[in-house]
Amino acid sequence: MKRQQYPSFRTVLNRDGIVRVAGAHDALGAVLAQESGFDAIWSSSLEISAGRCLPDFSLLTMTELLAVAADMQKALRVPVVADCETGYGNALNVAHMVHQYQAAGISAVCLEDKLFPKANSFAVDDQPLMDAVEFAHKIEVAKATQDGDDFLVIARTEALISGLSVAEALTRAHTYVDAGADAVLIHSKARTEVEVMEFLHGWRGRRPVVVVPTTYPNWHIDKVRAAGVSVVIYANQGLRATITALRSAFRSILKEGSSQSLEGDIASMSEVFSLQRNADWRKIDNPVRAIAPQPNQDCP
Amino acid sequence: MKRQQYPSFRTVLNRDGIVRVAGAHDALGAVLAQESGFDAIWSSSLEISAGRCLPDFSLLTMTELLAVAADMQKALRVPVVADCETGYGNALNVAHMVHQYQAAGISAVCLEDKLFPKANSFAVDDQPLMDAVEFAHKIEVAKATQDGDDFLVIARTEALISGLSVAEALTRAHTYVDAGADAVLIHSKARTEVEVMEFLHGWRGRRPVVVVPTTYPNWHIDKVRAAGVSVVIYANQGLRATITALRSAFRSILKEGSSQSLEGDIASMSEVFSLQRNADWRKIDNPVRAIAPQPNQDCP
Amino acid sequence: MKRQQYPSFRTVLNRDGIVRVAGAHDALGAVLAQESGFDAIWSSSLEISAGRCLPDFSLLTMTELLAVAADMQKALRVPVVADCETGYGNALNVAHMVHQYQAAGISAVCLEDKLFPKANSFAVDDQPLMDAVEFAHKIEVAKATQDGDDFLVIARTEALISGLSVAEALTRAHTYVDAGADAVLIHSKARTEVEVMEFLHGWRGRRPVVVVPTTYPNWHIDKVRAAGVSVVIYANQGLRATITALRSAFRSILKEGSSQSLEGDIASMSEVFSLQRNADWRKIDNPVRAIAPQPNQDCP
Amino acid sequence: MKRQQYPSFRTVLNRDGIVRVAGAHDALGAVLAQESGFDAIWSSSLEISAGRCLPDFSLLTMTELLAVAADMQKALRVPVVADCETGYGNALNVAHMVHQYQAAGISAVCLEDKLFPKANSFAVDDQPLMDAVEFAHKIEVAKATQDGDDFLVIARTEALISGLSVAEALTRAHTYVDAGADAVLIHSKARTEVEVMEFLHGWRGRRPVVVVPTTYPNWHIDKVRAAGVSVVIYANQGLRATITALRSAFRSILKEGSSQSLEGDIASMSEVFSLQRNADWRKIDNPVRAIAPQPNQDCP
Repeated sequence: MKRQQYPSFRTVLNRDGIVRVAGAHDALGAVLAQESGFDAIWSSSLEISAGRCLPDFSLLTMTELLAVAADMQKALRVPVVADCETGYGNALNVAHMVHQYQAAGISAVCLEDKLFPKANSFAVDDQPLMDAVEFAHKIEVAKATQDGDDFLVIARTEALISGLSVAEALTRAHTYVDAGADAVLIHSKARTEVEVMEFLHGWRGRRPVVVVPTTYPNWHIDKVRAAGVSVVIYANQGLRATITALRSAFRSILKEGSSQSLEGDIASMSEVFSLQRNADWRKIDNPVRAIAPQPNQDCP
Repeated sequence: MKRQQYPSFRTVLNRDGIVRVAGAHDALGAVLAQESGFDAIWSSSLEISAGRCLPDFSLLTMTELLAVAADMQKALRVPVVADCETGYGNALNVAHMVHQYQAAGISAVCLEDKLFPKANSFAVDDQPLMDAVEFAHKIEVAKATQDGDDFLVIARTEALISGLSVAEALTRAHTYVDAGADAVLIHSKARTEVEVMEFLHGWRGRRPVVVVPTTYPNWHIDKVRAAGVSVVIYANQGLRATITALRSAFRSILKEGSSQSLEGDIASMSEVFSLQRNADWRKIDNPVRAIAPQPNQDCP
Repeated sequence: MKRQQYPSFRTVLNRDGIVRVAGAHDALGAVLAQESGFDAIWSSSLEISAGRCLPDFSLLTMTELLAVAADMQKALRVPVVADCETGYGNALNVAHMVHQYQAAGISAVCLEDKLFPKANSFAVDDQPLMDAVEFAHKIEVAKATQDGDDFLVIARTEALISGLSVAEALTRAHTYVDAGADAVLIHSKARTEVEVMEFLHGWRGRRPVVVVPTTYPNWHIDKVRAAGVSVVIYANQGLRATITALRSAFRSILKEGSSQSLEGDIASMSEVFSLQRNADWRKIDNPVRAIAPQPNQDCP
Repeated sequence: MKRQQYPSFRTVLNRDGIVRVAGAHDALGAVLAQESGFDAIWSSSLEISAGRCLPDFSLLTMTELLAVAADMQKALRVPVVADCETGYGNALNVAHMVHQYQAAGISAVCLEDKLFPKANSFAVDDQPLMDAVEFAHKIEVAKATQDGDDFLVIARTEALISGLSVAEALTRAHTYVDAGADAVLIHSKARTEVEVMEFLHGWRGRRPVVVVPTTYPNWHIDKVRAAGVSVVIYANQGLRATITALRSAFRSILKEGSSQSLEGDIASMSEVFSLQRNADWRKIDNPVRAIAPQPNQDCP
């Protein structure tokens, strides 16, 4: 059984049509998103932190975030886009990060212009941003560090999140693209897509734009595409659906005194086995005697 | 903010009433089970393998399984019971395992009498068992290795799973308790609890008994308790609920063209933040200037 | 075979006499230092980085540094003092760090008043320091976070390293002790101990003082003790001896065309086995049939 | 700064001349061996276990052994040959192993025909071997699993170690090559190379042969080459030199009361910095203001 092959995120981005990405915090969520038709997976620092019941405040280390991204990528036929937060420190940390992520087979990373250690964009207001020139330098170092041409660096500006203007967001985005960014992510926590639309209008398609419609979920993909967006990340809905489902299942078992009433509503064991690819693994010929090896000379 | 304190599993077992345990594969699932009222968490090798989209065939290493169990325990106020499969090899591996799990703060482990590498009990029929005397020796080594009296070793017999008789299961269980096992887990994949009931009848309460009603979900907790069971593990329902919820959420986003229609059905971002304990973490005084330190001499 | 027991570093510090600590980057070096008579082991970020051929510039993550410290501690009968650099970020990172290090059984940590990401003290001149009040806050958070009274936090000032005065070093040290530091480490890269002596004279023994005589190796332990120092760390000599020995051994093999001429000068295989405690491990009864299990029913 | 590039081990093996390989247990040892002129590095399970002060009895997991091999490979310009012991279980574990090692950039692995869990070849006599047909099946699975043609699988027979005949070793080696092995490692613990020579004579160069002259260190490389060996591994001399050097250095510090007398004999700090490639890393432009970011708006 061969290990999974996957295209780079750049390859996916170069295809026709908007790229739809789902956030996940483990390989299971990633594979389920792929199975549903998503084009790539966002290894979200929010999701991964929440999966550990820790805040998304740069407490998890690069080691921990990369391990999850790498586990996802090994299980997927679509590429992972790794949420690398602020790059884990300064320009040297960014260079080290690029070495490590490429060595793990990750083809796209996203860096944001907050200061390390960051807080989650939705959790803490008015976080200071890194000076744009400094951040551009991080992007420049990332690009200078990468092997080959296929690795893709997304520059994420938190200007709107931090209460700055669309004009500032545009200035920053241009600075980052000047420094070599392959795409920009414009993040917003507004209740509508209006300010993101304003950004897109000013941007004029200089490089691909990525959006994350968490607080403005009403924005239909057709309108997102029409507005000139290249990539849309549904970053945390899977996590939130998981929480609701687990609460409901656990409470049901305790309330009902058994799991009987759940049985019709939850995946069967054979669905679990299918996601684990048991059948493929069992095709590897593995005779029982390999499990319990018995050199002939030891038998009476 | 102090780290979480938790009782040992032995302490929980010594309380009145049956102990209800939920399976999980990460700290998030574990905390949600705790929040729902479960008394302890089963760090399930099936769930953890499935979370990685790998089969439950002893491919994940002790390092990987222990890391998850330790992450769970750090987030919990209830104890983890660690599914340690066959003990990861022979008696020396078991001794090493006890060192490592105790060092990570785990207070209870479960060993099963299959051969390494094992396959999941529900996935592969008629797996050979380890010789009972050999397995008893593993239990003996585990008990001789542990620090203090509080650590608890559960011996799990797969006799019924492997198609052997209740009599064989009882003989094995007695052998394991003779060797020092603190409790026994009697596993079954029958569609009813009949053979487990037969085991319990023959066992006569010599030591606490653990059951895992996956294939006989109709067995009500009151009857489980009345039958003399001390611990019941709902080992994989959380995983199965997660799969269904993720499938449904991901498909909805793609089908609807946005996450709008999900919003009412999934946890809010503030519920996520609450599970991450953001408020507690933010009580740690952490002035902005600590995020962006500015030695006076550098300001103009 | 029981796992190793060890006293806390506080216990060792409370004994009579100066505490002699050796730097190491793996359990092997740590155990050899213990065997030679050292009282504790410094899990040095310089040594661990060098062991990975990476610069000591905060590239290794807390996960990686903690893993080494924990592996060392598991192998030792003396305590580890963990070099935790700047605390891996801000006050929240420090709180998380204390949770993680205590969970791993580490009884003493050292934090330094440089900014994250730091560079090694000997490698880069004139690194800016964190504002003293901010750093004191990190110490305060560390102390407020710890479980129990036995955990020990050492505040390390880099004032002299950064070219500031002894007076500034003293002011900083007092601020840190006011914030709860259990001991102070006064670091210096002068070619003699003169400035450290000046510090000690001004300090008047308010709390235990730790020194690291890397650049002033001529300072005899009797004089160190007489000067009022409580702990001396020989932080990197083991690493440096390793480098020389490996170079010499590898070159000899290639030059001589065999390892024959080395044989008299290097440890024997049985010395290796002794450090691995093979004999203790083999006392665990582990019959051959446990290695090659053979259920009777499968033999003809 | 680009990450290190390295040829595959197959590429090195296809060059003229015998391939000289040194054992190591961390990136530092690996880089020092490379610097001395070795052509490849053996990530030795004995060395890595000893580096943790644990016996070489299959206690360390694949996760732990692979992490070291991957860290080495990232630091090297020569390839790593990974000691994968018995393949960590059965044929499924071998398939998983190939996935994981290839994903980490390792280009050559070595599997041995002992049973899992194994003991070190020099530490425990008369260990049972796996049935040759079963082991050949592992090799076959490894070859069927690999991506591309460049990955190289070495089959190691422990026949001579286990007291079997040269004829048996030859039969096994042929069986393994029939199954697809790219090379064979003939291990011996005899005090001379006589039985290895006998093997080579019978082998007639069907595939490259690897030898490990630990117990017969007198065998000169010119004779090794003349005997038809393709690869020679000096598997543990670095470890043994390290032990001697650390003992000597640590004892000297305690005995002399300072490290002064060591100074002339151990590597300087600048040699350490050179191995860490500090100068290369510092070429990454990283202004002080990136270390201590100061958004303009916050300055008075």
